[in-house]
Amino acid sequence: MTLAPESTRSPAWAASLHVEVQQFYAHQMQLLDLGEAEQWAGTFTEDATFAVPTLPEPVRGRAGLVAATSRAAAELAAAGQRHRHFIGMFDVRPRPDGAVDVRSYAIVYASQIGGESRVHRVCVCQDVLVRQGGELRVLARTVTRDDLA
Amino acid sequence: MTLAPESTRSPAWAASLHVEVQQFYAHQMQLLDLGEAEQWAGTFTEDATFAVPTLPEPVRGRAGLVAATSRAAAELAAAGQRHRHFIGMFDVRPRPDGAVDVRSYAIVYASQIGGESRVHRVCVCQDVLVRQGGELRVLARTVTRDDLA
Amino acid sequence: MTLAPESTRSPAWAASLHVEVQQFYAHQMQLLDLGEAEQWAGTFTEDATFAVPTLPEPVRGRAGLVAATSRAAAELAAAGQRHRHFIGMFDVRPRPDGAVDVRSYAIVYASQIGGESRVHRVCVCQDVLVRQGGELRVLARTVTRDDLA
Repeated sequence: MTLAPESTRSPAWAASLHVEVQQFYAHQMQLLDLGEAEQWAGTFTEDATFAVPTLPEPVRGRAGLVAATSRAAAELAAAGQRHRHFIGMFDVRPRPDGAVDVRSYAIVYASQIGGESRVHRVCVCQDVLVRQGGELRVLARTVTRDDLA
Repeated sequence: MTLAPESTRSPAWAASLHVEVQQFYAHQMQLLDLGEAEQWAGTFTEDATFAVPTLPEPVRGRAGLVAATSRAAAELAAAGQRHRHFIGMFDVRPRPDGAVDVRSYAIVYASQIGGESRVHRVCVCQDVLVRQGGELRVLARTVTRDDLA
Repeated sequence: MTLAPESTRSPAWAASLHVEVQQFYAHQMQLLDLGEAEQWAGTFTEDATFAVPTLPEPVRGRAGLVAATSRAAAELAAAGQRHRHFIGMFDVRPRPDGAVDVRSYAIVYASQIGGESRVHRVCVCQDVLVRQGGELRVLARTVTRDDLA
């Protein structure tokens, strides 16, 4: 139940990392929902992988992330819809080498403009974060969806 | 991506503020859902503004906040419903002058007593917080709803 | 509005506890949704009580918690459904004796595998946490549901 690598580190250090992780995800998901594809992709490493159940293999690298996100944003706009990715429930596990495993839940809400809001997807997000130039970045993301086998 | 004013401050300071913001919102929204209109209004400054898309101009000041909230609570009770405001996804940006910009997501759930629960509203909440007598207070709140143009 | 016992403690201490509480709940609820009944029950004290509105009296002790959780997991699997417990909105109140009162919101999402996802339940969770061997444990949990009178 304890975070193993923290046993040699202070509670204040652990708290500080946990909060940094929370701020990172809040900002990252807000960028996504704002359609800021380039800035959003910038929160991943250059060679990041992003695996989702609806693609046969992971998206790899920022250009692919920008393309996938821009396409999704265009489709939403055409459909007169808005999506919000509400992420939380962060189980944060620092590794001895400085990488951080984070398992979280992400709920996607869909709203029809002029219509109703509803739950669209319930996802589990398993990330490996690394630090580059002092900033957290996603090195690898694996998303699963509760409605898929 | 970094919180500019924090570059001259410690990570522990930033983490401490972020957590204080989280505790502030959790308590504030719980007061609202409990129908504690006076206590809830006390988490705003005396001259606070509260802008929502369904009103032609912002509510201004605590008396107006109490009136609006009490009315909403009475309508819910009459309809046999409960609302919960679940807020999170805090993007926290301290200003050099001590004010804090917070952009967050708030999901409103509606439950019919004896019936079903559902998503009622998906909102983005943009606040300016200030400190008064050591406590955080909302100086200005602007709420947008995803289902409205 | 302030956390009374913190007046004699540092903001860093309060932030550290708040984050520890968040990590505790994220991990605990993920264990529940993973069907890890034994590990989940291990996050309660041996003599913990768990009161829900659908049972005439509280479940008491870990064996009862394991049994109730295992039964629920088997029913979900048989129905081809997945549940996720998304908890947040932590109002954290440390007591002078070291126990911690936590009032939070928990949304339960249900997904039909091969079908849709939706809000299942909207709950308020009122816990008393205690520390045992350095770890937080639930001593008493009371859950209410918004759809019940």
